[in-house]
Amino acid sequence: MAFLEELQMEGVASHFARIPMFPFFDLTHYMLSLMYLRHEEGICNVSRKSPITCWICSMLSCFGGAMLAAFMLGEPVIKPFESNINIVLATIVWYMVFYFPKDLFFKFCSLLPAKLIIVAGKEIARVRKIAVGVAHAHHVYHHGYIVMVAVGLAKGAGSGLIATIEQLLRGVWKPETNELLDMPFATKATLLGAVLFTMQKTGYVPISKELLILIITTLLVTIKVTLTIMHSHGSPLAPVESALCR
Amino acid sequence: MAFLEELQMEGVASHFARIPMFPFFDLTHYMLSLMYLRHEEGICNVSRKSPITCWICSMLSCFGGAMLAAFMLGEPVIKPFESNINIVLATIVWYMVFYFPKDLFFKFCSLLPAKLIIVAGKEIARVRKIAVGVAHAHHVYHHGYIVMVAVGLAKGAGSGLIATIEQLLRGVWKPETNELLDMPFATKATLLGAVLFTMQKTGYVPISKELLILIITTLLVTIKVTLTIMHSHGSPLAPVESALCR
Amino acid sequence: MAFLEELQMEGVASHFARIPMFPFFDLTHYMLSLMYLRHEEGICNVSRKSPITCWICSMLSCFGGAMLAAFMLGEPVIKPFESNINIVLATIVWYMVFYFPKDLFFKFCSLLPAKLIIVAGKEIARVRKIAVGVAHAHHVYHHGYIVMVAVGLAKGAGSGLIATIEQLLRGVWKPETNELLDMPFATKATLLGAVLFTMQKTGYVPISKELLILIITTLLVTIKVTLTIMHSHGSPLAPVESALCR
Repeated sequence: MAFLEELQMEGVASHFARIPMFPFFDLTHYMLSLMYLRHEEGICNVSRKSPITCWICSMLSCFGGAMLAAFMLGEPVIKPFESNINIVLATIVWYMVFYFPKDLFFKFCSLLPAKLIIVAGKEIARVRKIAVGVAHAHHVYHHGYIVMVAVGLAKGAGSGLIATIEQLLRGVWKPETNELLDMPFATKATLLGAVLFTMQKTGYVPISKELLILIITTLLVTIKVTLTIMHSHGSPLAPVESALCR
Repeated sequence: MAFLEELQMEGVASHFARIPMFPFFDLTHYMLSLMYLRHEEGICNVSRKSPITCWICSMLSCFGGAMLAAFMLGEPVIKPFESNINIVLATIVWYMVFYFPKDLFFKFCSLLPAKLIIVAGKEIARVRKIAVGVAHAHHVYHHGYIVMVAVGLAKGAGSGLIATIEQLLRGVWKPETNELLDMPFATKATLLGAVLFTMQKTGYVPISKELLILIITTLLVTIKVTLTIMHSHGSPLAPVESALCR
Repeated sequence: MAFLEELQMEGVASHFARIPMFPFFDLTHYMLSLMYLRHEEGICNVSRKSPITCWICSMLSCFGGAMLAAFMLGEPVIKPFESNINIVLATIVWYMVFYFPKDLFFKFCSLLPAKLIIVAGKEIARVRKIAVGVAHAHHVYHHGYIVMVAVGLAKGAGSGLIATIEQLLRGVWKPETNELLDMPFATKATLLGAVLFTMQKTGYVPISKELLILIITTLLVTIKVTLTIMHSHGSPLAPVESALCR
């Protein structure tokens, strides 16, 4: 009975893992990244004064994770820009977020129902990216556990990690904090996810990659959607941490 | 008649494109880069206190474009330093600019006639570098339009783009501005040139690469020489921009 | 007679060069790097508040040289993390330095006799790293003299050179100085060593690499141990420099 159940779960997971990221999930990733960027201080000024800088910062927000992972692995950092169709999609989102008449696009996306869909889509894309990053690093360094975790983390939460550089490009410098020093929940979850995928890849977690993707995605989407509904910036990991770090 | 004329232009362009950059045009590039560096606040102090740092900053000014392009394409950033003869040439210029008795070299180069020749030579070298950068990126990513523009821009105006890092090496930190945020005319022209070479490479501009080099070089040299004679830091693109960005 | 003597010296040098770095000399390198990091302002606070950041900064201190050299040569910057056994060793040292009960480990290592052994071991490891770096760069660029010196310097003194980045990760920003601008003795000695190894590699120093390693190691260990005994932060090169730079 349990066997049958698992079989079905495996089937669901395998189907789920085969859903292509492009265009819908990539789109939600670009939308959420750029909506976060829109909330940054001074960015609207930059978008008026220097659209090129605004565009470059936007692309760093959208493709920063892939660039950071490429940098770590000694690949061309500019590789994500090879895919014209993704660049065009991100550019359209950039244009809509920053230059739509009366800002209607941004206002519409900020409405709760729209935002919930975007948040959910982004988390689905994130988990897949972590898995891809870990698999890619595993391909290069078969026994480099730290490398796998680092590349998975970079792929999944890279835009936040390189935010200091993105800010510098538009003339803002905030050295006193960064996402490593003060990890938001999403980065912590990405780190945990990268650890789990690395353990799966090296045989310490006895389930299939597809099932792990499904489990982590379900968890992450549930938590992030709940947090968004509650307008909360708190972290569900806080109780665990305070217990550990007493 | 028009055909014959074009044939001759093609011949001129083809001859022009075959003029080697080394040593004369490379020399003018090093001279102008280091003369700009000499104008920086505090650099003379550094040149006395720490000649090694001054030399490293000078090399970044001279080879920053090639290093940035190499970084983007995942090649060794230190590759430009492989060419000993170019390093020796740049080092001689560095020595003359910073340590010549009574500063006669710097004063001589700053005289208008000398400066005009240097400026003209530098722009000729710049256009060739943009073309080389675009061609190199095209070789790696056949359809990566953005990659081609970015590498062309890096090759042609990279020293300015990494000025923030060069300043940091000598203990100066100016995060509030950079050449992306506040593009000088030369950087804008390089960007336009990179776009044109990319369009040529991908078949959207129906003239030969050699002819395009000739046309852009003629335009750039004329404009920069005129600006230098007029002691102007204004940009000939300003009217177009203000019309576009009203 | 002199010939026989040299033969024996060559034998000693060849034996010495074959001593493996792992685990003892790597251990002393990690210990000294992390003891320096422990002396940094605010790091104890970080070690309590964000152990992950503290660990990452520690790894940058231990493997920064290898990462910088990899970056220069276009190799994966994350390559040093492939070696799990070295990571485990460095992590154990990190744990002992930052979290040992009553800080006994750090206090014990700071005692003069222990510190002398650690300092000596670290310098032995440093010289070997310079030689490895120069040889690696020579392998890639046969005639790139500057490349060889730069990679040797990076391998031997890289942690200091990227200290600005390491500080930034933990929210500290000190742009007004760095180890290039204000070289400590160890960095200067590393630079000299890299120049000597480059000259040996390209045939300008007519002794074997093993002998050169032995000579430089003897000199460096002697000087650093003496400086440590005298609690001196002065540089034995200061008289030479003041004579040269009058």
